[in-house]
Amino acid sequence: MQVRCLLMGLGNVGRRFLELVDRKRAMLELELGLELVVVGAADTSGAAICASGLDPRQVVQLKAKGQGVANYPDWGQPGLSALEMIKAADAAYNCRLLLEASPANLTDGQPGLGCIEEALARGMHVVTANKAPLVLAFPRLLGLARTHGVRLRFDATVAGGLPAVNLGQRDLAAAHVHRMEGVVNLTTNYILTRMADDGLSYDEALADAQAAGHAETDPSLDVEGWDAANKLVILAHSVLGYPATLDDVSVEGIVDVTAKMLSQSAAEGKRIKLVATAEEEGDGYRLSVQPTWLEAKHPLAQLGPKQMGIVYHTDISGVISAAIVEETPVPTASAMLRDVLDIFVARC
Amino acid sequence: MQVRCLLMGLGNVGRRFLELVDRKRAMLELELGLELVVVGAADTSGAAICASGLDPRQVVQLKAKGQGVANYPDWGQPGLSALEMIKAADAAYNCRLLLEASPANLTDGQPGLGCIEEALARGMHVVTANKAPLVLAFPRLLGLARTHGVRLRFDATVAGGLPAVNLGQRDLAAAHVHRMEGVVNLTTNYILTRMADDGLSYDEALADAQAAGHAETDPSLDVEGWDAANKLVILAHSVLGYPATLDDVSVEGIVDVTAKMLSQSAAEGKRIKLVATAEEEGDGYRLSVQPTWLEAKHPLAQLGPKQMGIVYHTDISGVISAAIVEETPVPTASAMLRDVLDIFVARC
Repeated sequence: MQVRCLLMGLGNVGRRFLELVDRKRAMLELELGLELVVVGAADTSGAAICASGLDPRQVVQLKAKGQGVANYPDWGQPGLSALEMIKAADAAYNCRLLLEASPANLTDGQPGLGCIEEALARGMHVVTANKAPLVLAFPRLLGLARTHGVRLRFDATVAGGLPAVNLGQRDLAAAHVHRMEGVVNLTTNYILTRMADDGLSYDEALADAQAAGHAETDPSLDVEGWDAANKLVILAHSVLGYPATLDDVSVEGIVDVTAKMLSQSAAEGKRIKLVATAEEEGDGYRLSVQPTWLEAKHPLAQLGPKQMGIVYHTDISGVISAAIVEETPVPTASAMLRDVLDIFVARC
Repeated sequence: MQVRCLLMGLGNVGRRFLELVDRKRAMLELELGLELVVVGAADTSGAAICASGLDPRQVVQLKAKGQGVANYPDWGQPGLSALEMIKAADAAYNCRLLLEASPANLTDGQPGLGCIEEALARGMHVVTANKAPLVLAFPRLLGLARTHGVRLRFDATVAGGLPAVNLGQRDLAAAHVHRMEGVVNLTTNYILTRMADDGLSYDEALADAQAAGHAETDPSLDVEGWDAANKLVILAHSVLGYPATLDDVSVEGIVDVTAKMLSQSAAEGKRIKLVATAEEEGDGYRLSVQPTWLEAKHPLAQLGPKQMGIVYHTDISGVISAAIVEETPVPTASAMLRDVLDIFVARC
């Protein structure tokens, strides 16, 4: 089966996705019968559209040289927006899938939100790694997907390459989750773990995380807990069926966690982690993100600096926990590819 | 959507499945749009077939009283085999699904194997919790399912309610697994953990496991490692795409693990677990089941007595581990229900 797709966002995840499409091309075709053709790609420079498909490697090389995709030979179109790309390419080239990996804009979700809406309304499936549109408009996007009979997948938005969303949505579809706990932000877990295990100060650990590519230049979204809160909102909607907003989450970051607190917790045999928690309460859930003292035996307590994890406490499927070691953004890109396969490749 | 199904095997898992069908009926219908009608059920006493559906609760009550399903009022048929039930009910009542929860017979796989073949050949989907047919005839059964355009699901066969198979087959479909490690047998993990943590002798721990319902009266299949080996063969076929047989697995059980070895491992900061391992080697995998000294930080080292777990080392999705706390056979039954939903309920 040939699947013609469009990709918006060529940062860490979007580029890694293109690398995976290239690296796994033969396997996808021979073993899974899937030929992915990237008809268009867009970044802030503009877009490139080619009916017979762009060369993923060439796009990656352009980005590696610091150029935008608008510079793609012959097919680059400077200034063409992602939204315009979708309209132009869908009408002309029968694209069935939008891959959305643009940066999270938590103010209004744009340009991702508008592009996802446009794609769903045109009957295209959507696979996104961008949290913002989901946090701001989950019910509307899900409704659009249902109305148009297409799928909206977003496994890459929570805990990188860990199938936290898929596990909860799919493997626990018949179960009731009464409690959910996650270490879903890599930056803060890296910082806390380095502080606890290696005696680094907060500033040292942060600088180290930035040097290793595990933290942004402006780390406030991560260290103040909002990135984890965003992921919690997505899990609440998708796994718990609970229509939460960011306002419903009690959020506390890691900026006030001191070396003294970490050594004190260690002395008590505990570990401090930034835990996103959903706890059933009345008809809904109490949602929080906060530094939490975990018993050493807690499945999230032993996570190393490059790990994230999730725990689902259920009525009929026991307590299920899962974790990932994620050294680079490749696993997150692989979660987008996983979602693509989930849409187009039927398991026997 | 109404799905008419047949269930064979009314032991621990089959009965729990019926209880789940009853308990989750309203949720399945209202939230997922699925009405499960159990048209027939079979055990060693015979079968019961009713066009309008058996009452799951009544079947469970019969079994609780020590009676067979052949005693089901009006519709019980003493001596009718599961195979005869499939032939009779499919032809007359449009059943689309066989649920197979009969005991594992590793000699010839019967009666499960023949019934699964019959069901697939008739165009019925199959969800099974029975390892034996898969261990003995995986390629043939998968081929039958493909030929007839139906699905063969068996998440319940490995590590109880942990979606170990689903996670590997589906979430890692594009990934290459170069190493896989699992604690997939509850009995042996219970025994080893109680010995290590509570200072029990092997005999005490085994007796305790039997009293708690975590071990069979004849525990040899478990403690000699063969149950774990069976599960490893299933994972090899389904996740690794490696057509292994039991003969390919180097198997060592836990009968020679002594209290002294456990205390020695603890002194070194390690834990002894019965680990099923697949390690890439040449064009294939080296498969083994053996007591293994794990570093304390290993994801399987910290598993408690009622836990099982799996670790996938991959090329593009990092290292993904998952574990379950399983107190009863309910999670295993829930894995069958999960598979049913995976076949019949599309996620948006």
